[in-house]
Amino acid sequence: MIPTSYRAVELREYTDGLPAFHVVQKERTELEKGEVLVKIAASPINPSDLAFLKGQYGIKKKLPCIPGFEASGTVVASGGGFYANYLKGKNVACSASPTGDGTWAEYMKVPAQLCLPLKKSIDLEQGSMAIVNPLTALSLIEMAKNLGAKGVMQTAAAGALGQMIHRLARKEGLNIIDIVRRDDQKEALTEQGFENVIVSGPKFERDLRVSAKKLNVTVAFDAVGGEITGTLAGCMPNGSHVIVYGGLAGTACEVHPGSLIFQGQTIHGYWLSSYLGSKGPLSIIRLSKRVQKLLGSELKSEVRQRYSVDDAQQAVADYSERMSGGKVLITP
Amino acid sequence: MIPTSYRAVELREYTDGLPAFHVVQKERTELEKGEVLVKIAASPINPSDLAFLKGQYGIKKKLPCIPGFEASGTVVASGGGFYANYLKGKNVACSASPTGDGTWAEYMKVPAQLCLPLKKSIDLEQGSMAIVNPLTALSLIEMAKNLGAKGVMQTAAAGALGQMIHRLARKEGLNIIDIVRRDDQKEALTEQGFENVIVSGPKFERDLRVSAKKLNVTVAFDAVGGEITGTLAGCMPNGSHVIVYGGLAGTACEVHPGSLIFQGQTIHGYWLSSYLGSKGPLSIIRLSKRVQKLLGSELKSEVRQRYSVDDAQQAVADYSERMSGGKVLITP
Repeated sequence: MIPTSYRAVELREYTDGLPAFHVVQKERTELEKGEVLVKIAASPINPSDLAFLKGQYGIKKKLPCIPGFEASGTVVASGGGFYANYLKGKNVACSASPTGDGTWAEYMKVPAQLCLPLKKSIDLEQGSMAIVNPLTALSLIEMAKNLGAKGVMQTAAAGALGQMIHRLARKEGLNIIDIVRRDDQKEALTEQGFENVIVSGPKFERDLRVSAKKLNVTVAFDAVGGEITGTLAGCMPNGSHVIVYGGLAGTACEVHPGSLIFQGQTIHGYWLSSYLGSKGPLSIIRLSKRVQKLLGSELKSEVRQRYSVDDAQQAVADYSERMSGGKVLITP
Repeated sequence: MIPTSYRAVELREYTDGLPAFHVVQKERTELEKGEVLVKIAASPINPSDLAFLKGQYGIKKKLPCIPGFEASGTVVASGGGFYANYLKGKNVACSASPTGDGTWAEYMKVPAQLCLPLKKSIDLEQGSMAIVNPLTALSLIEMAKNLGAKGVMQTAAAGALGQMIHRLARKEGLNIIDIVRRDDQKEALTEQGFENVIVSGPKFERDLRVSAKKLNVTVAFDAVGGEITGTLAGCMPNGSHVIVYGGLAGTACEVHPGSLIFQGQTIHGYWLSSYLGSKGPLSIIRLSKRVQKLLGSELKSEVRQRYSVDDAQQAVADYSERMSGGKVLITP
């Protein structure tokens, strides 16, 4: 039974602080050919959502809009067309259209090509996190290998994505240095068997330089920006690369000209949307199959807390306060 | 007649302010096989010299040392070996060895392979500036073309190197935007026929963005660093490149993570020493022939002032104060 309206989180203003969400009853509209209606099972809060809510993300939607970039659910209706009809009744991982409704709602109308069918064995909570983090982790490791790296380092290593990157790097035989901000994060990761965890701080550069040399680290993944981007660049051997994929510090990346000129370091950016846009549909299906295979192991995410659509505001506050230690899900 | 000693500028301490030079009478030592003695005719002061005197350059020599990276002169003695003997009596452009004596002296002992024979028709003052700026300009333009650029932009456009880069870019059919700091610099360049000169300042970003789009500018050459590196990155179309080759601002390059992530810009560094180190001797000879051909036209430098070795301190002060409007030479 498909309802004529459903509950959804509405954002009316981009704001630097915590957003004031309105939970609205949204009228269901007709599906067009190629569109499906997904009954949402779960949707995570990712760092990219926080940037989006502040209006600092690469995609800005016309307001009011429904936030949320990825989810899992069941396709309950099709607007017609081969692929949309094929998906009907299936569990899917889906991402929101850059110009349409987001995932923080009970239902989402979405172009069928933004849905990937999930195998029956995949848990819907894990399936809701099958796109953003896993594809980012897989593609960052692919980029590092293409740049000839034998070892990598990363900031924000304690987060769900950081842990995925670590496990994938080890699976691919790469050395990895994990940088965290606090001693308790170092302890937690070390307990999981992470070999080279370094706590950032005023004097960690020496340790980082020594480890980078020893472990042959020539590519750094940076989710933070600010001063640390330059520290990563300065501590790697000459001719290395920093790939910035997030700006958690909220400030410009600062890199000493000498690191660029005399050390020959290069600073790149990475955005999942551009990356997937540069791939053909076959590569994306291949990537998605790989993700589902690894979703129970290397690409598994821990869940810390679940909130209903009505409590989305609290969910965002909870995640903003602590972005490591398990994901926060919105489960309608 | 080769003297047993000669006057040379001596640096005893790296210092942030103006260096206190000592002019010493240096004993001539025996030449080893493969070395030559050059009687220096002229040697310019370059931005890289100022960075070196502050201890901020990619090469740091054991103190005391003789500064100066490039010069012209006549080979007056050879320590033996085919190429060293071949150079005897010839005019050369030469660069200092990274571990040996510099060029701010009446004579310099140097490995013959750091000398390029100059055609008789080349003026020795122009010949003294035949290496650092011309090879930098040629290789930056080559890099831009390899990156597929149809247009480029640059900071520090009023300096000798900036003007060379402009002329070479036009010769190669590339559009170019020249960024300067002052209105009088804009006037001077515009009088010379520079088409797109923009004065940097609080509101120049809009102009830069519009021009960059119109002129298809996808590569920026940056001699400055600091905030402007990020401005260059932010104002170019997506997928563009900044090549940092100097740090005149004296502060870290600041680039917004969004420019890297969402715009897909890449920040590179360029250093002549690494660049030449990556080339074989044949490419370098080919480059040097190209330089000599263009030394009277696209690669010509204006000379503003000449100082003796004894007045080197005053020469550095003069150049530090005003780095555009003609080069400052030390002419023993």
